Amino acid sequence: MEKFKNLGIVGIGLIGGSIAADVKKKGIAGYVTGFSRRLSTLKKAKDKGLIDEYFTDFTAGVKELDFLVICTPVGIVEEYMRKIRAYNSRLLFTDTASVKGEIVRRALEIFGEKGNFVGSHPIAGSEKNGIDAAQENLFKGKEVIITPLPFSSSESVEKVKSFWRALGSKMIIMDAEEHDRIMALTSHFPHLLVYAFLSLFGQESGKETGRFTGSGFTDTTRIGKSNGKLWSEILLSNRENLFVLLSRFRNCLDEFEGILKGYDKKKLIVKLENCRKIKGKIDDQKGNI
Amino acid sequence: MEKFKNLGIVGIGLIGGSIAADVKKKGIAGYVTGFSRRLSTLKKAKDKGLIDEYFTDFTAGVKELDFLVICTPVGIVEEYMRKIRAYNSRLLFTDTASVKGEIVRRALEIFGEKGNFVGSHPIAGSEKNGIDAAQENLFKGKEVIITPLPFSSSESVEKVKSFWRALGSKMIIMDAEEHDRIMALTSHFPHLLVYAFLSLFGQESGKETGRFTGSGFTDTTRIGKSNGKLWSEILLSNRENLFVLLSRFRNCLDEFEGILKGYDKKKLIVKLENCRKIKGKIDDQKGNI
Repeated sequence: MEKFKNLGIVGIGLIGGSIAADVKKKGIAGYVTGFSRRLSTLKKAKDKGLIDEYFTDFTAGVKELDFLVICTPVGIVEEYMRKIRAYNSRLLFTDTASVKGEIVRRALEIFGEKGNFVGSHPIAGSEKNGIDAAQENLFKGKEVIITPLPFSSSESVEKVKSFWRALGSKMIIMDAEEHDRIMALTSHFPHLLVYAFLSLFGQESGKETGRFTGSGFTDTTRIGKSNGKLWSEILLSNRENLFVLLSRFRNCLDEFEGILKGYDKKKLIVKLENCRKIKGKIDDQKGNI
Repeated sequence: MEKFKNLGIVGIGLIGGSIAADVKKKGIAGYVTGFSRRLSTLKKAKDKGLIDEYFTDFTAGVKELDFLVICTPVGIVEEYMRKIRAYNSRLLFTDTASVKGEIVRRALEIFGEKGNFVGSHPIAGSEKNGIDAAQENLFKGKEVIITPLPFSSSESVEKVKSFWRALGSKMIIMDAEEHDRIMALTSHFPHLLVYAFLSLFGQESGKETGRFTGSGFTDTTRIGKSNGKLWSEILLSNRENLFVLLSRFRNCLDEFEGILKGYDKKKLIVKLENCRKIKGKIDDQKGNI
């Protein structure tokens, strides 16, 4: 099952830590090297047995690797790419960021045709973050979208796929731009909506209003607990797609408002039942109960 | 613990069925009479031991009652009020609808100063409905907002409160208009948003897009599975408050769009972290983990 001699992971949080846990347990690599800016995180990862060795200085450890997974927020992936270019330019590496267009553009700028980067996005997030949220089997049965560069060799793509396959994921190859359009709809726009709604709630609520929320509210707004710094980078990186959806969403709101203003109960029932069917279809595709 | 001789329940679905289950188990009434338009529901309720007797004809059974809980959708509460006025006009009764202003206005029209109605709204819903979703202890620890009429006697209010207390609920007395403003924010507007978003999703998604949704999406849109007929009545009944929130929500969206257009990362982080705090405060008030 050993696929790599020395597998590096940058960023040992929910995603990086969960990858490390599986890599160690399944013996996917002979040796696992952890990178982070925070020594405390690295020490904790070592204590938990998630990594064999660690570096706060990326350039010091990157030369020894034969595979690397960058699990940092989207905004700093570029910085690591520049260091890879300088210190181990043929290294095969992937990332786990939720936005892919910008990352693929940066990779092309930095590496030209010579890069050995194949992007990945495992759809296995949580509103939690940090190494304490890391868990085994986080990626089991989950979709991973793979976004190769135009110049990625099929061998490199196959290696990245086999890495995720070893974690139990289902892989699909996709164009980075298409990935970003889809994720805007399935993840980034819902986050924006929930944030905007919580912002409204903050304005409109009284001291005790939170008492009168039910389980529906709790679930609907759960993603509003997501890390603000991480999500500001995601929303900014995919903002062009968000602008398109924002404009179309305003039309959807206008349509509902029109139906309510016209007191058109029949039409409203048809609309709501249609929404229910859309939700049912999504849950079926997802395998949710 | 017996508070009533013959307690009637109209509508034996999630709410009515769960009330019946607790009333029988806790011996809150000597006899429980079920009313529904559907004979099959009543038979099932009887078979499950939730009720002692049943009627599809409300007027035939209402005369024998000393307390009644109307658990129908908001749109038909008025119809039962007219029958109570005609057949047992001094009967103490309550309801469980999610909108209260319209119901209190109807009660005043129908009964004038003589009605013995005290509205209730237990905040204990679910996207599920029907008798098969009924469960014991659904109301335990849940908030119930009580909206008396201006002419309700303190004895009647106390009886309704003691009914909910026996089910383990926490009660708060509130003006019907205030109730509706609060519920617009905590429940009705989030439903409208999720419906509008699912409507957008239906327009924008491809055949397979549902595969690329994560657990955040699943939870955020869970309330989109709610019954369309029931929710069309709720949204219509509270539409004036929804219009106010819609207008202010558009401003919130505009603000986020402006920040994204200006690529103001610092401001965005502050906004998102503020939303996260709002969510945290709500969860604290609610006693959620």
